[in-house]
Amino acid sequence: MNFVGDIRVFRLPKFLDKQGFLVAFDGASDFKIDLRRVFVVSGHGGSVRGKHAHKALTQILVCLRGTCRVICDDGEARREVLLDTPEDALQIPPGIWAEEHYIDSESIVMVLCDLPFDESDYIRDYAEFLAYRHRQRE
Amino acid sequence: MNFVGDIRVFRLPKFLDKQGFLVAFDGASDFKIDLRRVFVVSGHGGSVRGKHAHKALTQILVCLRGTCRVICDDGEARREVLLDTPEDALQIPPGIWAEEHYIDSESIVMVLCDLPFDESDYIRDYAEFLAYRHRQRE
Repeated sequence: MNFVGDIRVFRLPKFLDKQGFLVAFDGASDFKIDLRRVFVVSGHGGSVRGKHAHKALTQILVCLRGTCRVICDDGEARREVLLDTPEDALQIPPGIWAEEHYIDSESIVMVLCDLPFDESDYIRDYAEFLAYRHRQRE
Repeated sequence: MNFVGDIRVFRLPKFLDKQGFLVAFDGASDFKIDLRRVFVVSGHGGSVRGKHAHKALTQILVCLRGTCRVICDDGEARREVLLDTPEDALQIPPGIWAEEHYIDSESIVMVLCDLPFDESDYIRDYAEFLAYRHRQRE
């Protein structure tokens, strides 16, 4: 069972030159996960995405442009992480409720996942999430 | 041995709502590759990146923001692909020389790869690339 203390922020090397930047994310060597799926989300300033937990999926969030405040919640404690540079990768293990608050207009967040899409892996209702956490503790 | 005719452009579903967009890329089911590594590159307008071929690596390029013209070359023929929307994914098999010309300022390109980084997999010199293609044909 994971808690907000199990969330990790990795600072990856960012290669800068006159043309722009390059940041690389290796599933196995950087995060010890099998990389299966990537999705990319844009958010206008003020929008909120996420608002769900996963039963089995691990997610790695990277803010490629703009600023995103991620609120993680294990049912007992919360932790906020501000993502505002593409070299910061936030690893959220399964069982954690997460919300992404997009601060800047046209922010872009990339999410690396270790499993294919499966709707039954999502918990989209907060009361149901608390009940799930309660059952896990038993 | 791959030719520019083996390059593919996939049009993936893009989910739009009031908050922005979401596009997902599943290594196995969308591209039939094992997803191992993702890198993200930004380019100012007028900059050129890439300019190399891979011996074994397959790359999938997605332009998340802005516009990028990708020139692919198999030593005999060239093919240009304009990437200007995140739902277009350009799959470049190994053995193809590729250059990315960034058109708009602050363009962002995400590259999905099926192998970890390995400098010995790169061919960075065009004359060497032509010699490599010639040897492959024998």
